[in-house]
Amino acid sequence: MNKKQFPYCQDWAIGVDLGGTKIGFALVHKDGKIKEYTKIPTLASQGKEQVVGRMTENIHQMIQKAKISPETIAGIGLGIPGMVNPMTGIVRFAPNLPGWENVPIAKMIENEFNRPVMIENDANAAAWGEKIFGVARGMKHLVCLTLGTGIGGGLILNGEIYHGQNFFAGEVGHMILNQNGPECNCGGKGCLEAYSSATGIRNQIREKYEEMRQKENDFSSIPDVNQVKLIDLFQQAREGHPVYSEVIREALEYLGLGIVNLIHLLNPQMIVLVGGIANEGEKLLQPIKRIVNQRAMPSYTEDPQIVLGKLGNYAGIVGSAALFFPDR
Amino acid sequence: MNKKQFPYCQDWAIGVDLGGTKIGFALVHKDGKIKEYTKIPTLASQGKEQVVGRMTENIHQMIQKAKISPETIAGIGLGIPGMVNPMTGIVRFAPNLPGWENVPIAKMIENEFNRPVMIENDANAAAWGEKIFGVARGMKHLVCLTLGTGIGGGLILNGEIYHGQNFFAGEVGHMILNQNGPECNCGGKGCLEAYSSATGIRNQIREKYEEMRQKENDFSSIPDVNQVKLIDLFQQAREGHPVYSEVIREALEYLGLGIVNLIHLLNPQMIVLVGGIANEGEKLLQPIKRIVNQRAMPSYTEDPQIVLGKLGNYAGIVGSAALFFPDR
Repeated sequence: MNKKQFPYCQDWAIGVDLGGTKIGFALVHKDGKIKEYTKIPTLASQGKEQVVGRMTENIHQMIQKAKISPETIAGIGLGIPGMVNPMTGIVRFAPNLPGWENVPIAKMIENEFNRPVMIENDANAAAWGEKIFGVARGMKHLVCLTLGTGIGGGLILNGEIYHGQNFFAGEVGHMILNQNGPECNCGGKGCLEAYSSATGIRNQIREKYEEMRQKENDFSSIPDVNQVKLIDLFQQAREGHPVYSEVIREALEYLGLGIVNLIHLLNPQMIVLVGGIANEGEKLLQPIKRIVNQRAMPSYTEDPQIVLGKLGNYAGIVGSAALFFPDR
Repeated sequence: MNKKQFPYCQDWAIGVDLGGTKIGFALVHKDGKIKEYTKIPTLASQGKEQVVGRMTENIHQMIQKAKISPETIAGIGLGIPGMVNPMTGIVRFAPNLPGWENVPIAKMIENEFNRPVMIENDANAAAWGEKIFGVARGMKHLVCLTLGTGIGGGLILNGEIYHGQNFFAGEVGHMILNQNGPECNCGGKGCLEAYSSATGIRNQIREKYEEMRQKENDFSSIPDVNQVKLIDLFQQAREGHPVYSEVIREALEYLGLGIVNLIHLLNPQMIVLVGGIANEGEKLLQPIKRIVNQRAMPSYTEDPQIVLGKLGNYAGIVGSAALFFPDR
């Protein structure tokens, strides 16, 4: 097709990663390169109008700074930490964004920029990013786990994001692995997230200290594990810290079991791990792979690759932009 | 399109349900009605040539008996209890059919009848049957659980059977729900099948008797639970049998948890229960629904219908035939 027929080549897309604490913006080229990137605090408590205002302001600035014509932007993709309907562009609700209930965010942004807007759940966006530009290029069936404060899941099945009936699919973090297990944020018990998310790990550490204290009639206060960085928790666990090592061993064990269940159920080509905990890299992968090899049925253990995402913390933002870039 | 252009209307398909103990055959009209039906013992131990021989013989007889021209048969669909590749028509392996490894069964049947042959895993066939002619007509996303000797799963996602990368998807029976749970046939521990299949229930009953015997220093022998019909086990459990009621309560509890995990992961419109245990009907559904309502996240509990299959023991056979009937 002759490019001259078109006034502009739409080589760009903007990705926005709307998080509970930070909003990331990126201008992404269709080859996957990030040309502009910026990050601002969400300040969600100021209300959604304020948040949307800061979003549009920053998108305007980014376009100006990049010195590209708005017509060369294929669209704006938003990754949102909640239940969203990509067909209507409405955020149904987002637990970490107070007041975000039934917000027609796509329409709001579209009106401002006169460019197409697509929205996705953030874990789905991360999965799509890894598929289009990351470690899962060319994969048809994959599960992407976002291992952070919580645990999210993005399913790509038959080459497309799988949404389910009400766009709620992929809640891997709330797979129940022990019905009598620790309490989860969702109100349930023994969910994967209650064991293997950053929050779950910290809660379990506090639990263990509390148990020890009661057993030993120790009235000293429990160390504030929120003050310890995740990377240090993992490091000290490996060095044999009596509490951390037990909790993290269990966290990885349950993460492995969750992955076994995903493999048995969906028979994916690849499981991609992203998010803060995935920064542990190979040290995370090895114990998980060992558990999967032990617990998955023999016919499955040869197949699925369990890998780290390639886009790091940019998976969601690049994936949101890549909603406008077709599969290659 | 003018029907006169075609010499024949292909209004029929043959469905074959190849089980470990019995083979069912049905001539199915495209409106879903069964015109002919027959069932023979598999006699799997005689070897696969013998089994295939009896299959072709019975298909020939069925066509003759129905007095239809073979050209009016759109095809022959085979539901097979194992890992099959529907693209190549090869059975990779089938645990309950000794010697069935890499058997090009589709080609073998095709050569005999000169009609197209399609193969499917039996749980997938049952899911498809319920979708095309049963309780799940018009559904886009559904999970069908075959609750029998084992527990199988058929996933219909986006209106199609979902196979996964190696056609292994849907092993719902081997979802691990308690990593320290009872041993499962697959070699693992605490799989759904180890709790909630007929085999799992019987094993757990034996376990419980054994525990009681040891606790009470009782040297009498354990009653042979294999001699008690499944329907009687359930009935006696409801009447308060001290061992059966505990085991079956747990079996339904884990079945409910497994369904919660499926709902969180796949957000289906419908969960369809078929197979021997599903014959319990409403008495089975009520406790399961209660558990799902307790344990699923609130946003999910309104949506998915948990229902009994409509085709009963014919789901697999009608579904195998219906592989030739497009979705309506």
